[in-house]
Amino acid sequence: MTAEIIDGKAISSELRNNITNEIKQLKSINENFQPKLIIIQVGERPDSSTYVRMKLKSSSEVGIDGSLIKLSNDISQDSLLEKIHDLNNDESVHGILIQLPLPSHLDEEKITNAVKQEKDIDGFSELNLAAIFKKNAVAKFIPCTPKGIMYLLNHENVKIKNKNVVVCGRSDIVGGPLSKLLEKAGGTVTTVHSQTTSDQLKFYCQNADIIVSAVGIANFITGDLIKPGCVIIDVGTNYVPDDSKKSGQRMCGDVDFDSCLSKASKITPVPGGVGPMTVVMVLDNVLQSAKRSAGLL
Amino acid sequence: MTAEIIDGKAISSELRNNITNEIKQLKSINENFQPKLIIIQVGERPDSSTYVRMKLKSSSEVGIDGSLIKLSNDISQDSLLEKIHDLNNDESVHGILIQLPLPSHLDEEKITNAVKQEKDIDGFSELNLAAIFKKNAVAKFIPCTPKGIMYLLNHENVKIKNKNVVVCGRSDIVGGPLSKLLEKAGGTVTTVHSQTTSDQLKFYCQNADIIVSAVGIANFITGDLIKPGCVIIDVGTNYVPDDSKKSGQRMCGDVDFDSCLSKASKITPVPGGVGPMTVVMVLDNVLQSAKRSAGLL
Repeated sequence: MTAEIIDGKAISSELRNNITNEIKQLKSINENFQPKLIIIQVGERPDSSTYVRMKLKSSSEVGIDGSLIKLSNDISQDSLLEKIHDLNNDESVHGILIQLPLPSHLDEEKITNAVKQEKDIDGFSELNLAAIFKKNAVAKFIPCTPKGIMYLLNHENVKIKNKNVVVCGRSDIVGGPLSKLLEKAGGTVTTVHSQTTSDQLKFYCQNADIIVSAVGIANFITGDLIKPGCVIIDVGTNYVPDDSKKSGQRMCGDVDFDSCLSKASKITPVPGGVGPMTVVMVLDNVLQSAKRSAGLL
Repeated sequence: MTAEIIDGKAISSELRNNITNEIKQLKSINENFQPKLIIIQVGERPDSSTYVRMKLKSSSEVGIDGSLIKLSNDISQDSLLEKIHDLNNDESVHGILIQLPLPSHLDEEKITNAVKQEKDIDGFSELNLAAIFKKNAVAKFIPCTPKGIMYLLNHENVKIKNKNVVVCGRSDIVGGPLSKLLEKAGGTVTTVHSQTTSDQLKFYCQNADIIVSAVGIANFITGDLIKPGCVIIDVGTNYVPDDSKKSGQRMCGDVDFDSCLSKASKITPVPGGVGPMTVVMVLDNVLQSAKRSAGLL
């Protein structure tokens, strides 16, 4: 068996077109309809700048008015909170995104929680997370990576109900909420983490119908660990030495792609799997927020 | 092998004595120290009245000033919220407990969330749950049943780290938060629920070092499902027909006690296992709140 490769690039691009068309259509019905995203970046981390540029470019491509508020690295917590407060009250703004990580003198939790729930398109605030974790509650926004993964699984007609699911990693932005979303979709979920032994990992993986890995360790999931026919979603972004590359390294996921390819039924590549879905879900959440604010949701 | 029976009644009574002594001691140091609990009961459900009576009696026994605010069944949501608001602002009150269920015209979620986090000794508010679910956050209060179970496991020296744990049930007040607490303690947790098949249940249980059942189904966990030596915590409270009883029924848990007793290493009985722990944890949370308010925590 050779697994079908889930083409996150193509699927995200299809979704991006849908978003573009929907915004165009909503603007044609109501000329005041204008989804607006504000990104707040504190300092000048080069990786952050790259992400921000990417999000702004994508926003503009689909018709979202995206802009960047760049703040000095030594901004005080109070000034930053005041800035967020102003944006919370600005009715023209539908999404506020705080580019993480923040400089260490700022309380990331407090600042993330300061974003009004209705504009928290990252879905990182406590109230939003609580809604994901509560059995019958509906969150205003699903964080972008878990949302992108659920979209991929649905797009590929992967059944979750009655299935054994393993989520590797328990972060607040990926593994934690994703485990709960998969459970709400009817999966029986085991979350493995840094205190899970390798024997335990093997036991759960060898029985899993779906494995999602988000631990940030190259070759964490290998072919011998998995059950024939399982579905593998790789969230990792790792770099390993590679002499054949000019940079001397190559990007890879958590999954040993080659050994899993011949056993799995479906697998996401890195790059080109979950990554592009995460970016497009930022746009989807902004559109969702703008629609909600216009009474269309 | 015959399992050791975990005596929740004795353990809770020991903890209750500790609480009594601690309150006595704190009062002797500071005559103004007086933990105070307010229970709000809407309507006259007989089962609710029984629980309320039990909590008030226990409170008074350990030196907590407990009192009941009994409100009419047809109280408006706004009046109830106003009442909670007043108690939130009353500095002499350390714990506010809304006796559930509420009459159907009241929004249980909204009312539970109205209790100030610092006084939410049930730990049911969204902000409190979010803190339980977030990886590095510390909740102000752990809901009483999960807290009682963690206490029992610790008291019995049950190792959780590196262990396979199955939690049956995913309610917001037991299974959900408990799964996360066990995971935070290092366990690898699988949460099984109504959409888990019987084959799945069998697979996970036969491999589990610790099983907690909170589904409310008599005989849900039977001896053939479990691994020799596992630890079983039974949260169920069910009633089954029993002609030998005057009432024609007998109380039992989720676990088929007899068939599990000969295979497990430790097991909680029903009654006399988790139940008494839940009650005493209400008292423990009120004391914790009073200490925090007095700057002692």
